[in-house]
Amino acid sequence: MCRWMAWLGQQVLIDELLFQTEHGIVDQSLHARMGAEPTNGDGFGLGWYGADGARPEPCVYRSVAPAWSDANLRELAAHIESPLFMAHIRAAIGSPVQETNCHPFRHGRWLLVHNGYLADFRALRRDLMLAVDPALFPLVEGSTDTEVVFALALTLGLQDDPIAALERAVGLIEQTARSGGHETLVQATFGISDGTCLWAVRYATEGRARSLFASSDVAAIRQLHPDNPRFARLSPDDRLIVSEPFSDLPGVWREIPQGTAVTIRRGGVIEERSFRPQSIPLASGAAR
Amino acid sequence: MCRWMAWLGQQVLIDELLFQTEHGIVDQSLHARMGAEPTNGDGFGLGWYGADGARPEPCVYRSVAPAWSDANLRELAAHIESPLFMAHIRAAIGSPVQETNCHPFRHGRWLLVHNGYLADFRALRRDLMLAVDPALFPLVEGSTDTEVVFALALTLGLQDDPIAALERAVGLIEQTARSGGHETLVQATFGISDGTCLWAVRYATEGRARSLFASSDVAAIRQLHPDNPRFARLSPDDRLIVSEPFSDLPGVWREIPQGTAVTIRRGGVIEERSFRPQSIPLASGAAR
Amino acid sequence: MCRWMAWLGQQVLIDELLFQTEHGIVDQSLHARMGAEPTNGDGFGLGWYGADGARPEPCVYRSVAPAWSDANLRELAAHIESPLFMAHIRAAIGSPVQETNCHPFRHGRWLLVHNGYLADFRALRRDLMLAVDPALFPLVEGSTDTEVVFALALTLGLQDDPIAALERAVGLIEQTARSGGHETLVQATFGISDGTCLWAVRYATEGRARSLFASSDVAAIRQLHPDNPRFARLSPDDRLIVSEPFSDLPGVWREIPQGTAVTIRRGGVIEERSFRPQSIPLASGAAR
Amino acid sequence: MCRWMAWLGQQVLIDELLFQTEHGIVDQSLHARMGAEPTNGDGFGLGWYGADGARPEPCVYRSVAPAWSDANLRELAAHIESPLFMAHIRAAIGSPVQETNCHPFRHGRWLLVHNGYLADFRALRRDLMLAVDPALFPLVEGSTDTEVVFALALTLGLQDDPIAALERAVGLIEQTARSGGHETLVQATFGISDGTCLWAVRYATEGRARSLFASSDVAAIRQLHPDNPRFARLSPDDRLIVSEPFSDLPGVWREIPQGTAVTIRRGGVIEERSFRPQSIPLASGAAR
Repeated sequence: MCRWMAWLGQQVLIDELLFQTEHGIVDQSLHARMGAEPTNGDGFGLGWYGADGARPEPCVYRSVAPAWSDANLRELAAHIESPLFMAHIRAAIGSPVQETNCHPFRHGRWLLVHNGYLADFRALRRDLMLAVDPALFPLVEGSTDTEVVFALALTLGLQDDPIAALERAVGLIEQTARSGGHETLVQATFGISDGTCLWAVRYATEGRARSLFASSDVAAIRQLHPDNPRFARLSPDDRLIVSEPFSDLPGVWREIPQGTAVTIRRGGVIEERSFRPQSIPLASGAAR
Repeated sequence: MCRWMAWLGQQVLIDELLFQTEHGIVDQSLHARMGAEPTNGDGFGLGWYGADGARPEPCVYRSVAPAWSDANLRELAAHIESPLFMAHIRAAIGSPVQETNCHPFRHGRWLLVHNGYLADFRALRRDLMLAVDPALFPLVEGSTDTEVVFALALTLGLQDDPIAALERAVGLIEQTARSGGHETLVQATFGISDGTCLWAVRYATEGRARSLFASSDVAAIRQLHPDNPRFARLSPDDRLIVSEPFSDLPGVWREIPQGTAVTIRRGGVIEERSFRPQSIPLASGAAR
Repeated sequence: MCRWMAWLGQQVLIDELLFQTEHGIVDQSLHARMGAEPTNGDGFGLGWYGADGARPEPCVYRSVAPAWSDANLRELAAHIESPLFMAHIRAAIGSPVQETNCHPFRHGRWLLVHNGYLADFRALRRDLMLAVDPALFPLVEGSTDTEVVFALALTLGLQDDPIAALERAVGLIEQTARSGGHETLVQATFGISDGTCLWAVRYATEGRARSLFASSDVAAIRQLHPDNPRFARLSPDDRLIVSEPFSDLPGVWREIPQGTAVTIRRGGVIEERSFRPQSIPLASGAAR
Repeated sequence: MCRWMAWLGQQVLIDELLFQTEHGIVDQSLHARMGAEPTNGDGFGLGWYGADGARPEPCVYRSVAPAWSDANLRELAAHIESPLFMAHIRAAIGSPVQETNCHPFRHGRWLLVHNGYLADFRALRRDLMLAVDPALFPLVEGSTDTEVVFALALTLGLQDDPIAALERAVGLIEQTARSGGHETLVQATFGISDGTCLWAVRYATEGRARSLFASSDVAAIRQLHPDNPRFARLSPDDRLIVSEPFSDLPGVWREIPQGTAVTIRRGGVIEERSFRPQSIPLASGAAR
């Protein structure tokens, strides 16, 4: 179990959303309410894009310390502004607590975070790694399932169409599990960005997927809570995606339906479509 | 808030009490039930004495990682046996997460662990440090209230009579707080050892003290649970002191009353007396 | 032994001076040439001021990892620009490797770094801590001599006149050592900033002080090395202070004489005066 | 570059060989003399076997801190005795500093340490991982070349004949490199143990192999240095293998010739034979 959040909108001090929020992501590292586990203390990561586009690659800060106790995270959050960033808090399930297992994972301008797991991952790992583009193989530095999903999605076209690539990656994983007689279950919410857009996916092969929410339309939020000074500062461009809501205020958060992919573009534009894993012939993947 | 445990008895593999127990101390690092906070993930420490007495000083392993995720703790626990050891899991309240703030604290053959806090400690710190024996002053390496309490108790005779020294230390702290117009509250359970005995204290200046339990007489435990293979291996010498019980089995744990000091000697001997802070003239302490 | 550097000038990507330099500070963490020890691997710190002055307090990133292997330092350096920053690499001499012992130390807008040591510091620590303003006492979180020097300098007027305050602090330390019969030796280069100016001091009670260099006048550097593209980018406002030169190019670095305090203001202005510790009555210090 | 040491002999306090030695392994972490680099500060590991054989699996303590500054290593070394242990200090060349990249690597009762590297490892990694027994594939948790060599040797019979298995593993690596058009160079000293014997290998595909030394016969050492109290305590059973000698005393150390495998058995028995990589058909390895 993990939790994550992503912001796309006006340039904000990261602190405002990480620490100066009622039930923000750092608070969730100690007290998650909707996850399988309340504690997400096995490291964290923060990836942010600059405002000016001078450097298209995001900066990533990852640490094995729990987010709640990391002095550097407080420092950085209190001094760095960004119009687009993602934060992730980790609850390791079996794999070691090390920076190379912390999200977000990065490739060039791309960031990916994940909440969930692949069932029977240890049994699947070899076959999935074989399906990774050999040029990407040596870039896998850690031992999480997420990093392998990211490498598969990159192999299958993430940089052209991130949702389609994830549909292929998840399809390939399910097919690999099924054909190997393993438990077939991808449990996932994903967050992805290239510095211009945000993509979010909520999906489970079966059963209930991990929770995922998008912030509502700013105009609607303001109408519901006209006296909230925080909301007064929101602009129509601002959008948040979160594993679980930061507050209990009604009308502020909208649950993203299961089996759904969401695309958020600058200007507050949000598009939804269904997320359907695509079967691709395993051999061709493995042969690349 | 923190949690701790101490074992005095037959030589056991540390693993049995740290990991192979239903609701042991490592489990409590994620899911404490009786503490102010369920999570105690801000480092931990383990101090153990050898069996043979060849080295009277205990070995101490401390880490800033949460106990639940530290691979080395699992390793050491699975390979090291000891007839007398203490483990502590930390929930920092304000002070940094660093090894020098992890319990147990050691001085020569002595170990001390603490669950609780001194109210207004930052305001008291200077006056309390002045009351520490100047020879001990430079040995205070961290920034916790506990380390200062330990230094005070060492100043006030811990090595001759640990309970009396703690009564003087707590008395001095309460008096310092009172005379400075600060909130006067010592919240504490303490565990102390010199490699031969265990001492445990449960005390609060006012209100309810942190929880503390001693294991019951082994004969009684066995009579209550005749079919439990774990209890069958206990010897009459074995005693555990814990912040909170490892299991819900009736009759296995006995709550230590508030305002009480307990002494456990080899052979399972357990003695109880009341714990009463002693006022000592502050000037004399400060003048040393 | 430690090494440090400070930049005041045009806004630069920190990476340029930390990593993209021939014998920069990170390289010095593995291969210092002029220090007592070649290795400075006991943690590091980076403190930087923002460009716009929106946040006058500097951001500080400190880590116990060696600078050469810290992935986050590479990330941050490659993404953060600053017109004024200080970096420090640490070689611990006895005190623990923990973030609270890493430089720079900060108080409000002020940063301080130090290379050197106080002889017999453990024996002096109590008396020096007594001379610290009681309001500052609880802010001392680590166990280094440097943090105590900083607290003393703050007590003695750092925020009004940093060099004069350091002269008083060093005078007080020397006097305390002398009157206690201890070895009397302050070995120090200091770097200080408030976000507008840089101050640097090179001093030793006796013997040779640690090395310290300032970059030469930009015009002079360019005349000497007209074809160097790096120097072509320098502006007349740019000044560097370093424990040891980044390169062996002649004329680029000027050794700061022993017993000297240097003030650098925006615009490349550099002023020098002698640094003379001031004796102040110890009692008054202790009584504050 | 790394350095390692291994002890097989009488039960000793680990401290004696790690810290209480003139130019021991911890000193080498700061000041190696014979390596490519003087600093080996990117983590370390210690693996030791118990005396009694009650637990055949060794205990492993690994840390990302430099060996010279790790407080826990000092503690453990000062309290733990062992008749057979290995210590390794790491100088990372490109791969992350994380515990899963620290030596020794363990599988069941087996430990392996390595000094050296595989040229072009990133390019080879995928093909080598394919040659690993699929059942072992998910056990590779880190990203070093050494862990892959260990997995290959386990695949190729390490538990039956460690030297022969290493000859096959190195042969397979060289062949894979050659057939892929990569630089073909295995640079290695290896240390291996199963708790009863020690095996050591010194090999380089071409050029000079990393240094490796065995302690001389105890009788000979004593005759050369009759007044040395340390040597007086040695028993005829004691043998040390080290990357570089602990002292400059003549006659104490014997260089292991390049292309050599050494087997040390209890009783001080030392056997030498040449180490010759074996070509094995790559397909069969990959097909397992």
